[in-house]
Amino acid sequence: MNFEIPEKMKALVLFGPNDFRVVNDKPVPKPGPGEVLVKVEACGICGTDVKIITKGMPKMPPYGQFTQGHEWAGTVVALGETVDEFKIGDRVAIEAHKGCGRCQNCIEGMYTSCLNYGQKGQIASGMTRDGGFAEYAVHHINSVYKIPDNVSFVDATYVTTLGCALWALDMSGGFIAGDTVLITGPGPIGLSMVQACKAVGAEKIILTGTKNDRLAIGREVGATHTINVNEVEDPLAEVMKITEGRGCERTYECAGTDEAFDLCLRSTMRGHVMTCVSFYKKPVTAALDYAVLNGINIMTVRGEGRNNCKRALSLMSQGRIQTKNIITHTFPLDDFATAYDYFVNRRDGAMKVVVLPQGK
Amino acid sequence: MNFEIPEKMKALVLFGPNDFRVVNDKPVPKPGPGEVLVKVEACGICGTDVKIITKGMPKMPPYGQFTQGHEWAGTVVALGETVDEFKIGDRVAIEAHKGCGRCQNCIEGMYTSCLNYGQKGQIASGMTRDGGFAEYAVHHINSVYKIPDNVSFVDATYVTTLGCALWALDMSGGFIAGDTVLITGPGPIGLSMVQACKAVGAEKIILTGTKNDRLAIGREVGATHTINVNEVEDPLAEVMKITEGRGCERTYECAGTDEAFDLCLRSTMRGHVMTCVSFYKKPVTAALDYAVLNGINIMTVRGEGRNNCKRALSLMSQGRIQTKNIITHTFPLDDFATAYDYFVNRRDGAMKVVVLPQGK
Amino acid sequence: MNFEIPEKMKALVLFGPNDFRVVNDKPVPKPGPGEVLVKVEACGICGTDVKIITKGMPKMPPYGQFTQGHEWAGTVVALGETVDEFKIGDRVAIEAHKGCGRCQNCIEGMYTSCLNYGQKGQIASGMTRDGGFAEYAVHHINSVYKIPDNVSFVDATYVTTLGCALWALDMSGGFIAGDTVLITGPGPIGLSMVQACKAVGAEKIILTGTKNDRLAIGREVGATHTINVNEVEDPLAEVMKITEGRGCERTYECAGTDEAFDLCLRSTMRGHVMTCVSFYKKPVTAALDYAVLNGINIMTVRGEGRNNCKRALSLMSQGRIQTKNIITHTFPLDDFATAYDYFVNRRDGAMKVVVLPQGK
Amino acid sequence: MNFEIPEKMKALVLFGPNDFRVVNDKPVPKPGPGEVLVKVEACGICGTDVKIITKGMPKMPPYGQFTQGHEWAGTVVALGETVDEFKIGDRVAIEAHKGCGRCQNCIEGMYTSCLNYGQKGQIASGMTRDGGFAEYAVHHINSVYKIPDNVSFVDATYVTTLGCALWALDMSGGFIAGDTVLITGPGPIGLSMVQACKAVGAEKIILTGTKNDRLAIGREVGATHTINVNEVEDPLAEVMKITEGRGCERTYECAGTDEAFDLCLRSTMRGHVMTCVSFYKKPVTAALDYAVLNGINIMTVRGEGRNNCKRALSLMSQGRIQTKNIITHTFPLDDFATAYDYFVNRRDGAMKVVVLPQGK
Repeated sequence: MNFEIPEKMKALVLFGPNDFRVVNDKPVPKPGPGEVLVKVEACGICGTDVKIITKGMPKMPPYGQFTQGHEWAGTVVALGETVDEFKIGDRVAIEAHKGCGRCQNCIEGMYTSCLNYGQKGQIASGMTRDGGFAEYAVHHINSVYKIPDNVSFVDATYVTTLGCALWALDMSGGFIAGDTVLITGPGPIGLSMVQACKAVGAEKIILTGTKNDRLAIGREVGATHTINVNEVEDPLAEVMKITEGRGCERTYECAGTDEAFDLCLRSTMRGHVMTCVSFYKKPVTAALDYAVLNGINIMTVRGEGRNNCKRALSLMSQGRIQTKNIITHTFPLDDFATAYDYFVNRRDGAMKVVVLPQGK
Repeated sequence: MNFEIPEKMKALVLFGPNDFRVVNDKPVPKPGPGEVLVKVEACGICGTDVKIITKGMPKMPPYGQFTQGHEWAGTVVALGETVDEFKIGDRVAIEAHKGCGRCQNCIEGMYTSCLNYGQKGQIASGMTRDGGFAEYAVHHINSVYKIPDNVSFVDATYVTTLGCALWALDMSGGFIAGDTVLITGPGPIGLSMVQACKAVGAEKIILTGTKNDRLAIGREVGATHTINVNEVEDPLAEVMKITEGRGCERTYECAGTDEAFDLCLRSTMRGHVMTCVSFYKKPVTAALDYAVLNGINIMTVRGEGRNNCKRALSLMSQGRIQTKNIITHTFPLDDFATAYDYFVNRRDGAMKVVVLPQGK
Repeated sequence: MNFEIPEKMKALVLFGPNDFRVVNDKPVPKPGPGEVLVKVEACGICGTDVKIITKGMPKMPPYGQFTQGHEWAGTVVALGETVDEFKIGDRVAIEAHKGCGRCQNCIEGMYTSCLNYGQKGQIASGMTRDGGFAEYAVHHINSVYKIPDNVSFVDATYVTTLGCALWALDMSGGFIAGDTVLITGPGPIGLSMVQACKAVGAEKIILTGTKNDRLAIGREVGATHTINVNEVEDPLAEVMKITEGRGCERTYECAGTDEAFDLCLRSTMRGHVMTCVSFYKKPVTAALDYAVLNGINIMTVRGEGRNNCKRALSLMSQGRIQTKNIITHTFPLDDFATAYDYFVNRRDGAMKVVVLPQGK
Repeated sequence: MNFEIPEKMKALVLFGPNDFRVVNDKPVPKPGPGEVLVKVEACGICGTDVKIITKGMPKMPPYGQFTQGHEWAGTVVALGETVDEFKIGDRVAIEAHKGCGRCQNCIEGMYTSCLNYGQKGQIASGMTRDGGFAEYAVHHINSVYKIPDNVSFVDATYVTTLGCALWALDMSGGFIAGDTVLITGPGPIGLSMVQACKAVGAEKIILTGTKNDRLAIGREVGATHTINVNEVEDPLAEVMKITEGRGCERTYECAGTDEAFDLCLRSTMRGHVMTCVSFYKKPVTAALDYAVLNGINIMTVRGEGRNNCKRALSLMSQGRIQTKNIITHTFPLDDFATAYDYFVNRRDGAMKVVVLPQGK
């Protein structure tokens, strides 16, 4: 198979805070050693993109040049030096982060905690180098995954969101068949957490939130119980009713609020594990007095980690994961502004919005 | 709810090697502190029962009194002192082993490696004390599990076999979503291993064996690839073809032969884990030279361990496990001799044979 | 060996809040099944005793009868039924907690997170039943440890404090040879943490606190660096200077304040582990935003756990642990009021104060 | 600091099986990106060197060019591109293996199980590329460690042997304070295992072997009990006597024979872990029947792994490790033939023999 690669391409470029435009003459990048060039077919918009557009980000390329997008998939069209793990024509999806490979953490496999963020070979596609809101993008093979035949490019952009949920599952022990879990926050991460827990055999999956439409989606994707924390008097009492007073073997905090953190912690069974899969905007007032008294450990995850994107694609291919309630909208790259508006303002129930750089 | 409990009961009694009879006047046992009395509805025959019948077993009760049966389920009809975890009428299944609770291993949670086998409170139902081939049996609540409503008594006898497979999964890391696994030996344990791996999201599940009918059942319960090791020239080459030369992230040896051990070991990906879920009759000629050179760890499991029976019942209730190809025959207790003959001689394709003490 | 056991004994009895007295006519307890009767030689005063004396505690025996003391050691003088793990004359020390042995957590080895606190066989010596501020006390063999010949009774009371530090080490991964650690708070637990980390080969051991005399003791028992947080402008900057900007592979919070928690968290190397070995009086304002961004996990421990008292006694016997700066005072039981005053008011530099029920 | 670097250097070159010579005109290598050039001060001879000299090795450089030596230390004299982790003048020691950094295993931190041995950036210094029996050598910074000031270059060559023992300790759980261990085989690895176990607080350290002089060294470096398996009737009975019938929490097989494997396995406490730190020349007749019945897991290690060389240097610097009984002889590079003869034929009690390329 062979692909003609143009010199210039269409790409979204960030010119300044809130100032983005689609340009037509950005040079197509060239893959370095260990990298591949990918013709991008789909690239999802993530909450981090909003932060970047509105406020910028440390270590990002300069305004006027920078192309974002870190949830992308496409077709390999050129190979960098030494690459034989992929061949031209392979359908691939990416994980945003690639560690430096040389710091203490990377050497021990903790590449999402790389000590050289943004330097010495560490890459965060669409964050510290150009990403996937473009017709072409390069990435290092460490963070490139073949897409199974029965998974579409659009669905494959879900690999990072689901990979993050699986990484949380992994970090919390990974083996939860028959266990009861609580998930706070029915956003994309929370709903992915529901799907991940269901895929590996959790028994009761309790999802809490404040929006009934989101909780309804939660039930569709696997939650066995949902609690609208605004509609019940005592959400913790509801959890305890469902668990016969014992609490949950695993809890996953995906809401990012003090209240959700507290509910999550107090819903965790003594001696068991709570995992934070959510960013907090500021310090949390956390009942660590309760945690210590009850021997509850609090894990945190950020990004995907430990090859969980590979697991994510496999579960999608196995038909255990659905995206129809998660990926709600697609737009061609030319309509990025509209796509962004839908995403930011949750128009028409938008959850994950995916951009199609090849326009289809 | 209340049950009338007779003084005497029907029970299988072992009078000597190969000399078993169903008697009608065995006293109904009384539950001790922390124990329950169960009206037994179903009790599976296991390979260990054959060993006991033919050769006896250390620490078993004396001939003329001993009632075997360690895979049983029924209804709680009386509670021993201090028991409030169960109530009369609860439908329950058991795990054979209960640790002493006071040795170093039990205190640290390794009750299947109890250092006080057969004494100081350690119990192996149907092995070191009377078991379930009887109308009534007692067991300690540590090893008694409520049966979900949608699981039958007959199916619930499968909890130990499946629990053993889940314990192997647990011991090997537990989180194998998207991984490739090899299982050698399509007996009850091997087929349970297939189901367990499928239930938690393994991608490729390779099953090897020598009997095509068993391998066909394997495919029905979840194997994605089967290899009849007698029909291919080089079974290892087949595994490597399926795994593109890398081998399997997890392998489970369920055949109990030197050849299967060797295939299993060499099919394991470098740096990964092989687990033995099978008894060997004698030392194995094991390629530990290969294991060391490739950093492969070899785990072993015996029995169920770490609450995996709870997980087993949950997965059955979730509809992720099927028994129709596994539990092939049932017989009333009066016909134990026939049941035993079917099991031992694999008559009519018998795999798991379950005895019904209440005669239904 | 044989001991004459009197009917009555001298014991401290709590009659109400802050109302304790030494009585001479308390009946000597009798060991139940699996228990031993111990002639108590030494019993340490712990912070929890102060809470009990001033405020009481849930599930404690009634005022007028209750004898506290959970850090005790002595000689076995009688054996309960089934006990052959010990013999009359054995010198022993205890761990306060014994799990129920039948809840989900105990079965899996998490006995310090027992779900049946104060009932069904769960024991917290000196908290939910009578303890060691008495001439005699009983305890279950699950939580009784032989004292090596070269460890004195007084030193052996240190087993729970040190066991708690070792449990924290265990929970945080256990293998820290060559790592850099931070310990906040030079109280008995913090100083034990220093000794535990040193005993297993930590390289740099940084201790922070507010009292220079305590920090000096820290240096004597193994701290390689100490920081008085009141005397430097930016304690975190000091930690980063010592660690060349990377932070510490393991951190242990032993101070119980918001400030110490924050310093501990921010001193933890990305992707590594912080452990709370301290009680908090109320929720903590915790920089979980920082924890998530940096993939830092927060473990908690309470009590000793997983046989770490056995490890503690061994390290003491090996000469790796010193008590001379930790156990500062001893008093006969008759002088309990004085002992208590020394402990509470830190008179004469008191740290651990040990009471001698046999008066010597 | 600055070093003059010549064009040519003295180096050992392997011209064919058993045909090695010291040449004077080998070009000094140049460090690639991420690499450093080291002026080699000391390089140990290892058993693997004997295999290479006598039989060659897969993926080694061609005869006539190849310089062996994988246990070396020296001074950094030049930096490759991007290197700022080291500076000219740093005293460093190396770990032989550096993973490819891009295979599934390396990404997850298992670089000693790299799937790309000898290619794509995987390096085994002195095996797949030139090593340290030369005045200069290059290595990738992933596997270069700063030597603490109080550790000599000669002692620093011990880092890989000790690192291997620590990796075994790590793989077996790592936290063995107060535990009883068995080590079979008092060669360099076995004696390092003794030192490693002692350094982290093992209580009883039992060492078995066949040579009394080696067992005596074992006692000097930390073994609390030694057993000459040729001089006692039943070595296992001796182990059981020492452990009061329970066996050892951890066992380490460092002898490489069937008999030692068997003794090691049967000496392991039920439910605990045996680790193989030894190469076997052929399959082992292993009592896996015993292993399964007793729930014993068998780990394997090869090489150093997971930054354990860093731990090794730290423990040496802390004064917890001695080399005087281990590193028995040093020779200048010109006398390599003599050094090799001493090592192979254990002349004058030779154990580790170190070569000094700078002639001092």
